[in-house]
Amino acid sequence: MKTNLLDGGVTAAKGFQVAVTHCGIKTEGLDLALIVSDGPASGAAVFTTNLVVAAPVIVAKQHLSQSGGLVRAIAVNSGCANACTGDAGLSAARAMATTLSKTLDCQLEHALVASTGVIGLPLDSSKIHQGIVTAAGDLNRTAHTAAAEAIMTTDSGPKEAAVQINTPEGSFVIGGMVKGAGMIEPNMATMLGFLTTDAKIEPVLLRKALSAAVADTFNAITVDGECSTNDAVFLLASGCSEVSVDKVIYPTFVEGLREVCATLAREIVRGGEGATKLITVRVTGGQSPKEAKCAARAIANSLLVKTAVHGSDPNWGRLIAVAGRAGVVFDPTQARVKIGPAVLFENDTVLADQEPTAAAHLKGKEVLLELDLGTKGSYEATVWTCDLSAQYVRINADYRT
Amino acid sequence: MKTNLLDGGVTAAKGFQVAVTHCGIKTEGLDLALIVSDGPASGAAVFTTNLVVAAPVIVAKQHLSQSGGLVRAIAVNSGCANACTGDAGLSAARAMATTLSKTLDCQLEHALVASTGVIGLPLDSSKIHQGIVTAAGDLNRTAHTAAAEAIMTTDSGPKEAAVQINTPEGSFVIGGMVKGAGMIEPNMATMLGFLTTDAKIEPVLLRKALSAAVADTFNAITVDGECSTNDAVFLLASGCSEVSVDKVIYPTFVEGLREVCATLAREIVRGGEGATKLITVRVTGGQSPKEAKCAARAIANSLLVKTAVHGSDPNWGRLIAVAGRAGVVFDPTQARVKIGPAVLFENDTVLADQEPTAAAHLKGKEVLLELDLGTKGSYEATVWTCDLSAQYVRINADYRT
Repeated sequence: MKTNLLDGGVTAAKGFQVAVTHCGIKTEGLDLALIVSDGPASGAAVFTTNLVVAAPVIVAKQHLSQSGGLVRAIAVNSGCANACTGDAGLSAARAMATTLSKTLDCQLEHALVASTGVIGLPLDSSKIHQGIVTAAGDLNRTAHTAAAEAIMTTDSGPKEAAVQINTPEGSFVIGGMVKGAGMIEPNMATMLGFLTTDAKIEPVLLRKALSAAVADTFNAITVDGECSTNDAVFLLASGCSEVSVDKVIYPTFVEGLREVCATLAREIVRGGEGATKLITVRVTGGQSPKEAKCAARAIANSLLVKTAVHGSDPNWGRLIAVAGRAGVVFDPTQARVKIGPAVLFENDTVLADQEPTAAAHLKGKEVLLELDLGTKGSYEATVWTCDLSAQYVRINADYRT
Repeated sequence: MKTNLLDGGVTAAKGFQVAVTHCGIKTEGLDLALIVSDGPASGAAVFTTNLVVAAPVIVAKQHLSQSGGLVRAIAVNSGCANACTGDAGLSAARAMATTLSKTLDCQLEHALVASTGVIGLPLDSSKIHQGIVTAAGDLNRTAHTAAAEAIMTTDSGPKEAAVQINTPEGSFVIGGMVKGAGMIEPNMATMLGFLTTDAKIEPVLLRKALSAAVADTFNAITVDGECSTNDAVFLLASGCSEVSVDKVIYPTFVEGLREVCATLAREIVRGGEGATKLITVRVTGGQSPKEAKCAARAIANSLLVKTAVHGSDPNWGRLIAVAGRAGVVFDPTQARVKIGPAVLFENDTVLADQEPTAAAHLKGKEVLLELDLGTKGSYEATVWTCDLSAQYVRINADYRT
């Protein structure tokens, strides 16, 4: 597959515009974004697996189902999650969608909503109404980075990506933006993502492609092991390019989508609350994909591992001890632990002379931790995470104050 | 049951002595303790559930099994866990037990060993040998607090407890000491505990009593969700009191043992790395004991909950969101969230006016978080944990440096 990286984020693909405003949900800064397709686009989404589901998730699911996967626009606010807000919250989410559809003169079920921020806070419908009306007067293709800023909560910066994909049938674009920060796990959940493409693709195939791409990207990251009430990734396809995604093009489309999702997923982890390093945890030699992923996820979520990486301490014993309590069956004497290029434990033997090499690797911004379980299986799994710093504690101790 | 709190920790019960020394495993401070029974005592123990098991755990298990539950002495070192140390580590643990048995002139299988500290570091047998020989010359009943210090790693202080239990048959004593700090979860694991009693009780019944007492004490605490390779709780019964534990006395014995274990368990959490508050998480209204414990444990291990408590932020939404991702089935609209005396969410309604009361409660040293799942079930579970501070990160980022 031949791809070119592009600027433009969520408006890199043809047929999409954005608008942003400060509507007053946050005390300062952008807090509302609109993502609008020129006409009804094919739409697909994946949502939080949390039993506690925020009102905007309920409304977005209903509208996608009612429309058969057609979407004209999405309104997103930050600063208030509109979760655990009861009937009033559901009314507020419906009012947000109604305002969006009336303002853009589209069908109600073609208007989706998303929210992120504090749980349990009521959403101020009048501020949202005024914000949508104001923003809709300023739709454009250039404010994509401002849109990525407007959906942020404790994110350290906007996160965007876009690629152009060239095929024998012509080229098309996939781009998008995400917000992350904390609560990033498991199974996508715990984040908002807005992806667009100008490929032409039916809603059913679009859903399939999104599920496939999310599995080993947004579903393979963790910041703090939490899964929020509001998480959603949306994918809209305008069909404005010359390329129609058929059986031949489909694998290329998924590959391109996965590339954009992987880039954005890693940006979420890199921008995790208080994060100073991107950690790739790779577990090999598992007896099943599930066991490999279970071990990788346990290591990626271990406070002891994340703090050791933060302190550039090649404390490899923590990796094997965490795998040992993760419920995965393996023989520790057959396991191998690597940090960067350094093998620190192999054949039941500690290779202490490799510690300086491992320590040097840990001082970098990107860290690779590898555990081979040493079983006869050959399954592997990769999970991305970040280190745990005192800054994470400060952010989350004072989030609402 | 009528109990009196006593001083004396692990030597409060008649028939036990301790000795301590600095043998050089740690660069400074006490790092070796002996707990010695005047004669062969009944002995029972519970060990780590981690698949990766340290050498001293292997040896202690073997000796307990070979002796049929008789114990003369335990040697404990801190500073080196003797885990992931291969055949050399197993030899070092066996040598430690051999030195102990020869020095005290007891059978090899009556000598047990325990280690705590860094994983993957070789245990220096000559230092251990010299330390045991030196310490054995100074056995006494007064150095119990020094013994509790000698088994510490990053613990903020020694942890001891003892009670006298009065029965119609006479009185007996149960006492003990623990070390904890990090890696405190699940299923006891992740700590060392040494309990003694002068009640007379057979090894089989002693094992049963220990399992019962550990279930809702050491098995119901968590600091960071980790379970170490070395964890063990030992219980020795000298029989030096006038009380023999029969069917009538047994429930009283278990109750007293549970009281000592609960006190020590809470001390472990209170002394968790960087901890400033003891948090009691109580989940009620569960459909099964397992579901109640699962929700309680998820809340107790949530970084978002632990940081919110650290910041005295009554962010009750995090409690319900964590329960929602814990795999427990409940209807969030029927749930109730309490922080201290303040009900913050009930009947699908946010009670924002209660937040100041909750915030005031969170400023204290002991915090109560309660979630009623609102199902028709009536099962409940309590788990103790501590807050997560920047100090935890500093301790664990620099543990070995």
